[in-house]
Amino acid sequence: MREDRGLEVGTATLQEPYHGLAKSVLAATDVLVWWGHAAHGKVKDAVVERVLRRVWEGMGFIALHSSHYAKVFKRLMGTSCSLTWREAGERERLWVCNPGHPIARGIERSFEIENSEMYGEPFAIPTPDEIIFLSWFEGGEVFRSGCTWKRGNGKIFYFRPGHESYPIYFNPVVRRVLRNAVRWAAPEGQPWIDSCPNIPISKAREKLVAKGPRLHKEGETGFR
Amino acid sequence: MREDRGLEVGTATLQEPYHGLAKSVLAATDVLVWWGHAAHGKVKDAVVERVLRRVWEGMGFIALHSSHYAKVFKRLMGTSCSLTWREAGERERLWVCNPGHPIARGIERSFEIENSEMYGEPFAIPTPDEIIFLSWFEGGEVFRSGCTWKRGNGKIFYFRPGHESYPIYFNPVVRRVLRNAVRWAAPEGQPWIDSCPNIPISKAREKLVAKGPRLHKEGETGFR
Amino acid sequence: MREDRGLEVGTATLQEPYHGLAKSVLAATDVLVWWGHAAHGKVKDAVVERVLRRVWEGMGFIALHSSHYAKVFKRLMGTSCSLTWREAGERERLWVCNPGHPIARGIERSFEIENSEMYGEPFAIPTPDEIIFLSWFEGGEVFRSGCTWKRGNGKIFYFRPGHESYPIYFNPVVRRVLRNAVRWAAPEGQPWIDSCPNIPISKAREKLVAKGPRLHKEGETGFR
Amino acid sequence: MREDRGLEVGTATLQEPYHGLAKSVLAATDVLVWWGHAAHGKVKDAVVERVLRRVWEGMGFIALHSSHYAKVFKRLMGTSCSLTWREAGERERLWVCNPGHPIARGIERSFEIENSEMYGEPFAIPTPDEIIFLSWFEGGEVFRSGCTWKRGNGKIFYFRPGHESYPIYFNPVVRRVLRNAVRWAAPEGQPWIDSCPNIPISKAREKLVAKGPRLHKEGETGFR
Repeated sequence: MREDRGLEVGTATLQEPYHGLAKSVLAATDVLVWWGHAAHGKVKDAVVERVLRRVWEGMGFIALHSSHYAKVFKRLMGTSCSLTWREAGERERLWVCNPGHPIARGIERSFEIENSEMYGEPFAIPTPDEIIFLSWFEGGEVFRSGCTWKRGNGKIFYFRPGHESYPIYFNPVVRRVLRNAVRWAAPEGQPWIDSCPNIPISKAREKLVAKGPRLHKEGETGFR
Repeated sequence: MREDRGLEVGTATLQEPYHGLAKSVLAATDVLVWWGHAAHGKVKDAVVERVLRRVWEGMGFIALHSSHYAKVFKRLMGTSCSLTWREAGERERLWVCNPGHPIARGIERSFEIENSEMYGEPFAIPTPDEIIFLSWFEGGEVFRSGCTWKRGNGKIFYFRPGHESYPIYFNPVVRRVLRNAVRWAAPEGQPWIDSCPNIPISKAREKLVAKGPRLHKEGETGFR
Repeated sequence: MREDRGLEVGTATLQEPYHGLAKSVLAATDVLVWWGHAAHGKVKDAVVERVLRRVWEGMGFIALHSSHYAKVFKRLMGTSCSLTWREAGERERLWVCNPGHPIARGIERSFEIENSEMYGEPFAIPTPDEIIFLSWFEGGEVFRSGCTWKRGNGKIFYFRPGHESYPIYFNPVVRRVLRNAVRWAAPEGQPWIDSCPNIPISKAREKLVAKGPRLHKEGETGFR
Repeated sequence: MREDRGLEVGTATLQEPYHGLAKSVLAATDVLVWWGHAAHGKVKDAVVERVLRRVWEGMGFIALHSSHYAKVFKRLMGTSCSLTWREAGERERLWVCNPGHPIARGIERSFEIENSEMYGEPFAIPTPDEIIFLSWFEGGEVFRSGCTWKRGNGKIFYFRPGHESYPIYFNPVVRRVLRNAVRWAAPEGQPWIDSCPNIPISKAREKLVAKGPRLHKEGETGFR
């Protein structure tokens, strides 16, 4: 990331208080890149809720590799996010499905990762807004490896490549994709999230007289 | 619902064990119609998980009115699901956005509810697969009142009308919509949900020899 | 198709008047399966318009293989529909992305075509509503081989496999997919298409008095 | 438009050669704002094709008001694009469905147009990627007034307000929306469009030997 001088980069880890994601840190973050694996279950639900709210408000969220099972990602998708997998150090080739997309900027029509863990279809996600990369695996599988969605005002990108042992994040093309994705996922509009406001009858845009029975009092907060 | 002789109808309430949603009950349910309001927070998370899994497997899910804030619905959407609201017994008119859709079968181009609670935009949902109804309110607001999505294999329909005091579910057009929606949401394919299986190297579709280091042992279960 | 006794099957060819697609034929057709290649340019625009209208009304449309460049398909997509290709008789393996989808009913997790023409990404289509199949090719490419969309009330399915020389449509799994797809694409709702009606002021649902200048006369037809 | 100093603005009219849309003009255009009405049928098909290609390549396209029936817009949508309408100078109120979207930047939760032509649902469009505005009309109708799509690499925005007699494009909020939309629709990636290239066997990424019969010769152009 730091190869892009225009980006200001910080890290947050599981061991820190709030996993390093204090409210003030999140508020100052434009794009959160998430990588988790063995400890998905140890991520605190309060932090998950906090990250979700910040995504809805406009923060970009990039989920890497095994983060398909991260609590935050599963909550944003609303599906099981399962897939098939195999660890054989096989060759993976990623094809660009839309060379004009900003996440694919400067990337050839395809690129290879010589030793990769296989992730295969079916990948249990909701239909992506756009598919940027599809993977071909030496062992015969395929996978939707680069997908985008929007939830609230937050742009989301899932990117498959990554591994604990193989040096995948040292691959210059993978790094290029990540920098492109961070640029793409940055907030575009104004931060916004709503809280289910009651609109008093007196403030209706058209003249209105109350009719019939009422369950709530004027200006009351609704049930959550 | 019972007006459609082809449907077998049961009820489940918060007070029952597992809120009436035992695994066997869910397994035998094609479409679950959900209405909650004041007690969203009392719905047990274990039951929420169970319902989600059954939706992903193929069960239809219909969320009524204040169920925009039901735990299950929020989990399926991955957004805040907030909206604006007002209780003034005002007139609501629902317009059909696609008269050819099966949920609109037998419905005129628009229909009215004389005394209704207003729900207004912005409605914080992910883009629906299809919008079936849009509402016009006497007080000047509009709302996406009939929306569909798919999560896993489950079809989802949100329908806005409903109230505790106004006799909205006695309205014959509203009842028609609900019967149409249940028919539409019924499972179409074969029940399916995945569990992230490891594919052994020996079972790869193309001949494969393991290369490089491995984090997992052959046949191991991955991290959740 | 005739292997499914519940289907009534007819054929239409380029050489017939209106290419065999008289209005009465289309009106009686639930699902149109289209395969064209060398003569895309000879398909008459009037017939294209007629097919489009029937799709919008609710007729299913299944485009096979080289029909990615059929006039009707390109008009329904609104994109260039280009792809890359190679004719080497190589092995293709199609993976099911959602085993619970009705088009995948009775199909294993993947199936193979021993000699196939390669179609590769980028495939210039709008984001599909759902991806049912992804292809893996021996030569190293991948492709979105089974995709669905909806235009008006018509369900659309593009299916990649097919060739003039290789016996692909004799493959029993391919045939099963096609029969599933025809069942899936059949109209669900009521036939519907609109014609931009003028709503007279006297028929507005809310009382309305005309204000300001008018370009059109009451009841006039708009510009096309 | 010229109120935004960062924009360079030109105009093109039906009467000019190629309607003012020479290839060089289009190539230099980031975003094309289109308004047509009575003369949709006079727009030359060759120019339509040229604009489509430029949109697929990445040019933004904004369709105003009666341009729902413009040839280019109908071609991009692949649907009939019909709607209902009434010219009574009635009040229209547009609600923002997502206040965090860049097209809604600086716009209040709703804004009004005192004298407006009514456009009503059903609006025969494919499901938008996002709905930015919904309209409420005095006469009782509703409409999806601000919708986005992507076709190829081009971002598309349809915006309902506009009229030949009412001074709608002098409304400062409408002007703000248009400037926001132009900024949003500007190309993000690299210009790209494909032409269905044949990939020679010798250039396959995996070693490949030709098998079986061939319809095309090596390096041949495919059928269009």
